[in-house]
This record gives sequence, structure tokens and C-alpha cells, in this order.
Amino acid sequence: MAGMSTEGSDRDYIQSIERGFAVLLAFDAERVNPNLAELAAATGLSRPAVRRILLTLQRLGYVKGNGGRWSLTPRVLSIGQHYSASHSIIETAQPHLLALAEQTQESASLAALDGTEVVYIARVPVRRIMSINVSIGTRVPAHATSMGRVLLAWAPDQVIDAAIGSGLRSFTDRTVTDPDEFRRVLRQVRADGWSIVAEELEEGLLSVSAPVRDQSGRVVAALASSTSSGRSDVGRLRTEVVPALLRAAERISGQLGHSGGERDGFY
Amino acid sequence: MAGMSTEGSDRDYIQSIERGFAVLLAFDAERVNPNLAELAAATGLSRPAVRRILLTLQRLGYVKGNGGRWSLTPRVLSIGQHYSASHSIIETAQPHLLALAEQTQESASLAALDGTEVVYIARVPVRRIMSINVSIGTRVPAHATSMGRVLLAWAPDQVIDAAIGSGLRSFTDRTVTDPDEFRRVLRQVRADGWSIVAEELEEGLLSVSAPVRDQSGRVVAALASSTSSGRSDVGRLRTEVVPALLRAAERISGQLGHSGGERDGFY
Repeated sequence: MAGMSTEGSDRDYIQSIERGFAVLLAFDAERVNPNLAELAAATGLSRPAVRRILLTLQRLGYVKGNGGRWSLTPRVLSIGQHYSASHSIIETAQPHLLALAEQTQESASLAALDGTEVVYIARVPVRRIMSINVSIGTRVPAHATSMGRVLLAWAPDQVIDAAIGSGLRSFTDRTVTDPDEFRRVLRQVRADGWSIVAEELEEGLLSVSAPVRDQSGRVVAALASSTSSGRSDVGRLRTEVVPALLRAAERISGQLGHSGGERDGFY
Repeated sequence: MAGMSTEGSDRDYIQSIERGFAVLLAFDAERVNPNLAELAAATGLSRPAVRRILLTLQRLGYVKGNGGRWSLTPRVLSIGQHYSASHSIIETAQPHLLALAEQTQESASLAALDGTEVVYIARVPVRRIMSINVSIGTRVPAHATSMGRVLLAWAPDQVIDAAIGSGLRSFTDRTVTDPDEFRRVLRQVRADGWSIVAEELEEGLLSVSAPVRDQSGRVVAALASSTSSGRSDVGRLRTEVVPALLRAAERISGQLGHSGGERDGFY
């Protein structure tokens, strides 16, 4: 593979692929059965371009057309399934997520960092807490969530700098938005070994997270338990949920080959 | 949208999009961190073609390269998330899947039909039963599973004919492979209102499924409980699991607006 570079030039960029994904991702809760005009408006592409992409995606089995309206088929789930199948942490964590959800009677989640956002990679939902419909693949801002803080706390400096550099957007009047204060919070997470975030992403939303480590000691995921201010508070999370969460995170880490040491870095 | 057709000609087909998906789907449990040569071999594409596709997918954030090896990022989960977000049945079913899993202490699943295969669209795994790692998006043959039989039992004739026409492949010495026998089994499922399949896909695997209906009475999904021959048997599934399964399926159907009537057809 001499000379193989992972940096490409513009000449290497295939715009049709970008446009294919843009059309697929234009289907969402607000556009379940869009027509050609709605997809063209959503993507900024011309109608003839969207039409050719839809016909291609239909032949590949990812969308189906009916009376001028289009919808996603369950085949689109295959793409994420290849991620799940190639990341054994997800299967390893499943029974521990279920046990944590049963024990706490609250939703349990596993998340990974992707840039400045956190992605849910596994989840046992007990009840709906967030205003958005959270499912596997849902993305939330890292800085305002306990999962993101755990993933950033042990990340390399340039990852933390990127998260801060992208702007610490305020979602409620409790969101930590000051860079120095945010760095102090991450140091506290490292010292504590877990993170509780209360109502910084949404009013009424509380969550607590702990790091999951691989064989090398790197933090590769965050394990979280989420609840609402009507059902719990920070004090109860600390005394009742943190111990169960840390045990579950340690069990998952142990099954990934981790034996107690720590190493900075990330997935 | 006058003249808008959902049938395209070859001229409308965008091969770059097909190739982009082929490279994404070449990542799996056997190829977690492939290099360029391995991806070229898996897809049948040339190395320069695979390289351009990888660089494009990297710029879009779906793959990352490191030392000549490539891996999927959690961003690929976004694509399936758009399916989950646009199909409210998945969120509606989640608490009922969890309750069924807790009640039976067995994995609970929701599945939809895609051609002659069944796709897991939601799942609460309790323990591993199948030899394959089942996650959302995993596909199994419809004819040899209880979920597939439920989805086919109320499907239009042409869907049943297509499943039979594709060949009723044998997986164990119990798999029903005779077309007439298979049609008789589907009639029995319609008469019973549920399906039990024992060891037709894998030795030791038992599952029971019931239909989930939407407002119009169409069967839009199958709800399933799975176990192993070491933990249960057909008689116990019928007496102990079928009643709980039917109640859970009726509750999900009720929340989808179904009020008791039936209608043939499928999702």
C-alpha cells in the first residue's frame, strides 16, 4: 500500500455519493412520505437530480415510491447494522444495559463520540424523557450531556479543544458555556470517575454517565442512565444510581479485556 | 407531479451511489478494519475506485482511515435513525417490548417484511440465542421464522408467491420447504392469530410471533419472543407466552389506532 494516502483531493470526491446520502437523510419525522418537490426543497437539489437519485435508491431497495410519494424501507437499517456487527462492544453491553434499566427503572444508554456530538449506539428505553425521539443513531451535543462529558473528559486535548472551539451552545439557563468553566468541569469528571448533568440540554432532563474502557484502558464509550426532575434529583442519582452505573461500566470494560488501568485517549 | 414515474430507465441509474453503498456494506464482523485491497476484493471494484469512494465517505464522516486501515464511524447509524424517526411504530412499541422481555425473561423483537426477508426494527435482547449477532437491521429469511410467517400470513398473494418462488431454503431438517405445506402453515397462522416456529432456522431456536396492525387493520409488523429448546418447548410457549404476546401486540396495535377489525395487506 505504498503511497496510499487517506487525504484526497477534490478530484477524488464523488458528488453523486454525497447527493445520494442527502436524499436518504431528507426523510425524517417531518417528511415521512415526501414527494419529489419536497425532497428537492429539503436537499437544495433539482427535481431531475432528485428523481434520478430516488430511482437509483429504489433499485437498491432503500426507498419505495407509491403514487408520487416516497418512503424509506427497513433495508436502510442494514447500513447501521454493519456498524453494530463490527463493534463487539454493542453486543457485549446489551445485557448490562438491560440489567441497569431493570435495576433503576430508567432508560439505559451506550454512546460514542463523533466529532463534537454524541451518538447513541445502544439503548434500553424505559420511558420517554427527552422531547426528541431518541433511538440508536440519534445525535446530541457532547458538551451539554453527561455522556459527552465522560467521552470528552478522557479525550486528547485536540478533541476537547475542538468541542470548545465549535462553541458551547446554550440550551437552558444552566448550560455551561464558559470555556474555562467547561475545562474545570471535565477535570472534575476525571477526578470523580463519572458525570451528572442536570437540565443543561433540556429542562427536567437529568443523566449520569460513566466511562467504558477497552483492553488498552482507553475510554471507548459512555454508559448512561437518564431520568427526569419529577422522578429523581442530583443527590439521589449520586447515592442510588452512581454505584450501580459504575459496576455496570466496569463489567462491560472487563468483558472488553480491561483490567483496571487507565489510558487517556478515545475511540 | 404530472408524468412523474416511479419506474426509471438504465439511463437514470447512478452507479456511483450503488458503489458507495457496496463499500460501506463491505465492513462487517469479519472486516472491521479492512485495508484497500480487502475492500477491493470484497466489492469486486478496482483499488482506485475503492480509494475514491473511501475518501468521499471519509469526507462525509461515515468512515475513517488510520495507517492504511479503514473503519466505520457511528455516523453510519444516522441513516437507520431516520427510518426509526419516521416510523412511529418503533417508539410506540418500545415500552411493550421491554415489558414483554421482563415478563418472559426472553428477548423481545419487532420485525417488518422486506421482500422475502424479515428485518429486526426494534429489539430488547435478554440473552444470545441465535448463532448470529442479532441487532436492529439484521435480516433473516421470512419463511423459516415465526415473524416472517406472521408477516406473510396476512400479506397479498403476490408477496406470498414471491416468498415461495424464491425457494423455501432448508436450514434444518425441520424447515418447511414444500410449497403446498407452506401455504397450509400460513392458513393455520391466520386461523390461530399467531405463529410458533421451532428449530426451522437453527437447531435449538424457538420463537413465537403475533401480528401488529395499524389503524386500517393491516399487519404492519410482527412482535416476537424467542427462546431456546433448553429453556422452553412448544407446549410452554403456547400456554405461557402466547397470551402475553397477544396482549402486547394488541396494545401496540391499539396505540397505532387499530380498534379490532382486520384487513389483509401489508406494510
